[in-house]
Amino acid sequence: MLYSIGDTFEHEFTYTQEQVNAFAELSGDKNPIHIDPAYAANTPFKKPIVHGIFSMAVISKVMGMEFPGEGTVYLKQVVEFKRPIYMDTKYKVQTTFKEVNRDKHTAIVTTNIVDATTNKIHLQGEATIFHPTKI
Amino acid sequence: MLYSIGDTFEHEFTYTQEQVNAFAELSGDKNPIHIDPAYAANTPFKKPIVHGIFSMAVISKVMGMEFPGEGTVYLKQVVEFKRPIYMDTKYKVQTTFKEVNRDKHTAIVTTNIVDATTNKIHLQGEATIFHPTKI
Repeated sequence: MLYSIGDTFEHEFTYTQEQVNAFAELSGDKNPIHIDPAYAANTPFKKPIVHGIFSMAVISKVMGMEFPGEGTVYLKQVVEFKRPIYMDTKYKVQTTFKEVNRDKHTAIVTTNIVDATTNKIHLQGEATIFHPTKI
Repeated sequence: MLYSIGDTFEHEFTYTQEQVNAFAELSGDKNPIHIDPAYAANTPFKKPIVHGIFSMAVISKVMGMEFPGEGTVYLKQVVEFKRPIYMDTKYKVQTTFKEVNRDKHTAIVTTNIVDATTNKIHLQGEATIFHPTKI
């Protein structure tokens, strides 16, 4: 099956403090805004927020495992962090094929993360990807 | 101390297969290109490669912990994955202040990852960041 412009995929998810702590250990980014509720309480965010880079992990999962899935190679990512991602809150990744180049087997797909309840955009972005057989 | 255009920071690092496996578990992105040497041998990469998103974890660490450090908020990231990042290979993050907006306390910093031996660019990107007191 070849993906075409307009093909879309949606996936609901939640990050937990436990996952964020694990990413802090793994990356070495122990900025207290992500892991210390007392520190975060004195920031405009009021509560710990997910690392920007880690909030994109779900985009990696969707593209590497499901849409387009195995064999996908990342060429480029643009992302704007428009609102914070909090733990224990339901969000959705929404990704849609926007441009397709059949000769090069590449595509530009939108990669947005929206609040699953309010539909407000928290991460707005797009990825350029390569897939040898599905694009 | 206020950061200014031209201020630069460099940090050498290596990713291990163990770290990549941990990120695969944490993110759910178990694309075999990252974790299965037999599968990777049959791809143009020949060996497992670090997840694109996870290869950016070191950028998160540098900005959240060292340059500018605690209090940094990510507003935007653009990244091109120009060459793969392999495990057990020495790379350097190179980040330099390119534009500074003192009124908004925001800056654009380059966020490149280069091979520490050859100096070839593997990830080429830039981040827009906010810091209330250091920018």
